[in-house]
Amino acid sequence: MNKFKVTFQPNNKTVEVPKDTTVLSAAISCGVSIKSDCGGDGVCGRCKVVVKKGEVLTQPTGMLNDEERKRNIYLACITTIHSDLEVEVLPESRIDPSSRLKGIYSKSEEIESKEAVSSDKVFKHSPLSTKLYLELPPPNLNDTASDLDRLFRAIRKAQDLPVMQTGLSNIRQLGELLRGCEWKVTVTLGKRNDTVEVVLVEPQDTSNKNFGVCFDIGTTTISGQLVDLNSKKILGTKATYNQQASFGSDVITRIIYARQNEGIEKLHSAVTGTMNLMIKELTVEHKVNLNDLTCVVCTGNTTMIHLLLLVDPTYIRREPYVPTANFLPVLRASEAGIIINPRGLLACVPGVSSYVGGDTTAGVLSSGLYNETDLCILIDIGTNGEIALGNKDFLVACAASAGPAFEGSGVSCGMRASNGAIQKVKISPKDFSVTCSTIGEAKPRGICGSGYIDLIAQMLETGVIDRGGKIKLENHKRVRDSESGKEFVLVFKEDSASSKDIVINEADIENLKRAKAAIYSATAVLVKHMNFMLDDVKKIFIAGGFGTSLDIESAIKIGLLPDLVRSKFVFIGNSALAGARQMLLSAEATKLAEEIARKITYFELSVDSGYMDEYMAALFFPHTDLNRFRPRDK
Amino acid sequence: MNKFKVTFQPNNKTVEVPKDTTVLSAAISCGVSIKSDCGGDGVCGRCKVVVKKGEVLTQPTGMLNDEERKRNIYLACITTIHSDLEVEVLPESRIDPSSRLKGIYSKSEEIESKEAVSSDKVFKHSPLSTKLYLELPPPNLNDTASDLDRLFRAIRKAQDLPVMQTGLSNIRQLGELLRGCEWKVTVTLGKRNDTVEVVLVEPQDTSNKNFGVCFDIGTTTISGQLVDLNSKKILGTKATYNQQASFGSDVITRIIYARQNEGIEKLHSAVTGTMNLMIKELTVEHKVNLNDLTCVVCTGNTTMIHLLLLVDPTYIRREPYVPTANFLPVLRASEAGIIINPRGLLACVPGVSSYVGGDTTAGVLSSGLYNETDLCILIDIGTNGEIALGNKDFLVACAASAGPAFEGSGVSCGMRASNGAIQKVKISPKDFSVTCSTIGEAKPRGICGSGYIDLIAQMLETGVIDRGGKIKLENHKRVRDSESGKEFVLVFKEDSASSKDIVINEADIENLKRAKAAIYSATAVLVKHMNFMLDDVKKIFIAGGFGTSLDIESAIKIGLLPDLVRSKFVFIGNSALAGARQMLLSAEATKLAEEIARKITYFELSVDSGYMDEYMAALFFPHTDLNRFRPRDK
Repeated sequence: MNKFKVTFQPNNKTVEVPKDTTVLSAAISCGVSIKSDCGGDGVCGRCKVVVKKGEVLTQPTGMLNDEERKRNIYLACITTIHSDLEVEVLPESRIDPSSRLKGIYSKSEEIESKEAVSSDKVFKHSPLSTKLYLELPPPNLNDTASDLDRLFRAIRKAQDLPVMQTGLSNIRQLGELLRGCEWKVTVTLGKRNDTVEVVLVEPQDTSNKNFGVCFDIGTTTISGQLVDLNSKKILGTKATYNQQASFGSDVITRIIYARQNEGIEKLHSAVTGTMNLMIKELTVEHKVNLNDLTCVVCTGNTTMIHLLLLVDPTYIRREPYVPTANFLPVLRASEAGIIINPRGLLACVPGVSSYVGGDTTAGVLSSGLYNETDLCILIDIGTNGEIALGNKDFLVACAASAGPAFEGSGVSCGMRASNGAIQKVKISPKDFSVTCSTIGEAKPRGICGSGYIDLIAQMLETGVIDRGGKIKLENHKRVRDSESGKEFVLVFKEDSASSKDIVINEADIENLKRAKAAIYSATAVLVKHMNFMLDDVKKIFIAGGFGTSLDIESAIKIGLLPDLVRSKFVFIGNSALAGARQMLLSAEATKLAEEIARKITYFELSVDSGYMDEYMAALFFPHTDLNRFRPRDK
Repeated sequence: MNKFKVTFQPNNKTVEVPKDTTVLSAAISCGVSIKSDCGGDGVCGRCKVVVKKGEVLTQPTGMLNDEERKRNIYLACITTIHSDLEVEVLPESRIDPSSRLKGIYSKSEEIESKEAVSSDKVFKHSPLSTKLYLELPPPNLNDTASDLDRLFRAIRKAQDLPVMQTGLSNIRQLGELLRGCEWKVTVTLGKRNDTVEVVLVEPQDTSNKNFGVCFDIGTTTISGQLVDLNSKKILGTKATYNQQASFGSDVITRIIYARQNEGIEKLHSAVTGTMNLMIKELTVEHKVNLNDLTCVVCTGNTTMIHLLLLVDPTYIRREPYVPTANFLPVLRASEAGIIINPRGLLACVPGVSSYVGGDTTAGVLSSGLYNETDLCILIDIGTNGEIALGNKDFLVACAASAGPAFEGSGVSCGMRASNGAIQKVKISPKDFSVTCSTIGEAKPRGICGSGYIDLIAQMLETGVIDRGGKIKLENHKRVRDSESGKEFVLVFKEDSASSKDIVINEADIENLKRAKAAIYSATAVLVKHMNFMLDDVKKIFIAGGFGTSLDIESAIKIGLLPDLVRSKFVFIGNSALAGARQMLLSAEATKLAEEIARKITYFELSVDSGYMDEYMAALFFPHTDLNRFRPRDK
């Protein structure tokens, strides 16, 4: 078998691969991240590379224009290697931590996330791991209890704890450690299911340094938060794209990729790599020592949690759709490759089923939905959208595959809700001039989810687009043809931070329309399935990584959310992350999360005979059935 | 710094060491085992080597005779390296698995050990790890419980168990495994303190293959037993010398050695190396797959357990003599370097104090002493002799450092109680002819502990030695001078399996006298300390690795055991091993062992003002005070 050397720029990484390997595979195998939303099917056109030197074979594609072809640009996923190559990954196809182009920022950014933090107060403060300072009585000839007994005795005297254990590595260092610090030590006590582990024994009083991290691992976006476990204070919140996105934009393509040779290992490394980078940034910025990070709580959809733990997700997508685990024991973070204190713990928010994961559980927990008397609904808008319906008497949930558009991925100028993201848009009905407001009031760099929602609502309102999503405005400097249909220029390059026009094209609009249709139809079908009317719902919790704002009015206008009395809507931001933090901070919340996960009934949309019709009917702005979106008392 | 190459024969191992390194250190660092009872102090004279080539410097010693010096024989511990060397370890100084010379057999040998096995029946059969075969209902669209939930549900249906957990490695393989065997699996459930761990999940029904090993790790001898955990049947029992003996003959020298550079690692490797060899032999001989060995229970004195677990034993010998741990959590055997199933468990019998370890606990358990109404005593004769006094109301114990003589070590023709060991001796009072009986009726190879006891009793009775232990017989072919005082020939080389005379010399007798004095005086002082008379003791359990026999009459005659009514004595063999096996087979026994360990009060002999006097008075055969050993009703 012939082997060829391929060098990737700008990473300057070289790998030797067999003939006929795709350029995308070669890139992945040497750790070069290339965007690919479709998982290598040749349909998303994101994985563009320039072949600088060497021979390749490629397949026909409509994703490249003539100019690109002239410049020797290829789609990495459908192009195979037939000689030694030198390849440059195009800026817009790069997804590595240092790239800062076209709205893709792998370096995580500080975000200010609006969340249902108020309910934190409800739960008794008892973090997953606590530190306890002890001054042990030194042994003497009349008190010769062993070091370990002495330590356990002192812990039990201070706290009434269930079964207690510790690891051999702690025992090994105990004799020297206790004597070196004159019997003054701080123990870190970790809750491992119904037992308590002495996770760490440290010399002297370090009890004021106890930190935890919580993560919401989304298919597209990973959000993380550094928390002071003593004060419950959130020190910092970050979000970044999940580096797994190189391997496909949704959970299904990831599951398929996991079956490939070393696929699961690569997906695992991608997610833990992203998380470890965030941890490092958070701890450096907030001057926290990694060793003082004693626990992590993760939530995410079931596939994300499987990949995090390197557990085969194959059976999630095979009938009868059974995951390997919804409830996971508390593990050591290092077992999952998460870099905190080497003995620190990792808990995962329990999931419900293959397609309703711990993120839903966490959302139901932090929103307080589980405790409501009235009928409520939680709509978590994400790549894998989840909708939970119920109250304190029942809980039912379903998943809607919306795609990553609302997270700013898979759309031409999309970006996360971070500095420079256009989050509010106003279009003048007179001259179609555009007024944008960006996060951090920075020069605009791209459009985030809430910006797109606003934008489409404004385009609809001003007649820039029709209800089908086609651009109708003509003969205007902001409208022009593009490879992806017509496009509307929001910000001209003079005013853009990226020095490129910030646009929305018809393909983007189609993308966003499908996303909103998935969420809306899932909501409608779920409510109907339970024999309720949408109007019966008394409270609608809207969750998602939209930063601090989401214009409910715009969301209804485009048909993402049902047209209900406005006062029923509560925007709760990243409710999954908030729930994970509650578990980090309280054993009571952990217990409740377990109860919630057991209580939620999973509803599989695809088995509902009306779902496809609902979805198709929702592929208009706001809907084919305008009676659903009628003027009403607001 | 100059470095020199040293090659050791017959192992043909070479190591490079700095100038001035001792030959013993060099040997140790390349895994060549050389006998050394004194831990390298140059006083035992066991570490003889021939320097075949090269330059060395040595210190004056009385341990070598002229002929040896002529043959270029040196003591490895006091001889330093000054050029490249070729060294041959003398046969009598070898301690490697293949050597079969002069009573040192590192290859473990099958032994038939008399033990208090009857009490096994008392405890409910519930091994440390059990196997359970399950046929899980496969999932379907109406039963989509996750794989892990499904497994736990089936286990809980079969058995009522406390908190249950499992490790990530099991979860990782679960999806594929369950589907590969059509949901028919065998789980291994391990008791880890008050929780239950799903240790293993195996395809199909392997529940009939569940084995465990128990070990008594003595300072000099390690005994191990392979047990079928289903049938409780002992498949095989082995014993061998602890390879740690190269680093010193008693616990104190080992603790000192542990402080040296990598000392503890070497001691740890020596003991686990010995154990792993035994495990391998036992499993090969009894056709047991190592993977079907799911748990190990170890007992031993506190120092041995610390070294096994690589826990620093330093503080055991520093006032106030506190060990790092007496009670150890159930660990994974692999954490201690014990090679069984990689996820198999390791439990250690709980100890009492620095000098009364889990072997005493195990002995008190298996002898049934803890449950006796009358006052009883347990005398465990070993290098670190332990004596426990009490009944169901109280338990007190002390340790007596007897040295390894009764285990056949540190005496010129000593050997373990295995095939060819002289275990019974008869000396004719007329012509001093000797009749020996050996274990396995094999050609005699050496003398084991019970043989030495019999031999000294006979020598005393026939006047070959006096009460001080000096050889008094003169002008007899069996008596001659030696490097170690006079010696008495038991078996002439024509009849010996080693083709060398089997002898006992005055140094040996002195050694044995000190050993018996240590045991006897400890017994006497302990009884007196508790305000009893020796006659108050109603039952005396005699334990130790004496194989199947110990002549109580001889043991009293030499003053090892107190002169009490013969019917009070019960020889129970290796009671520590029996107790470890009981823990392996029963959770009830485990619980009881914990209670016993907590109940035993440690008595430190050295703080008793009368102890030294008692010891000195016992340095005669049988004793200076003959009133204690008077003819009486037997």
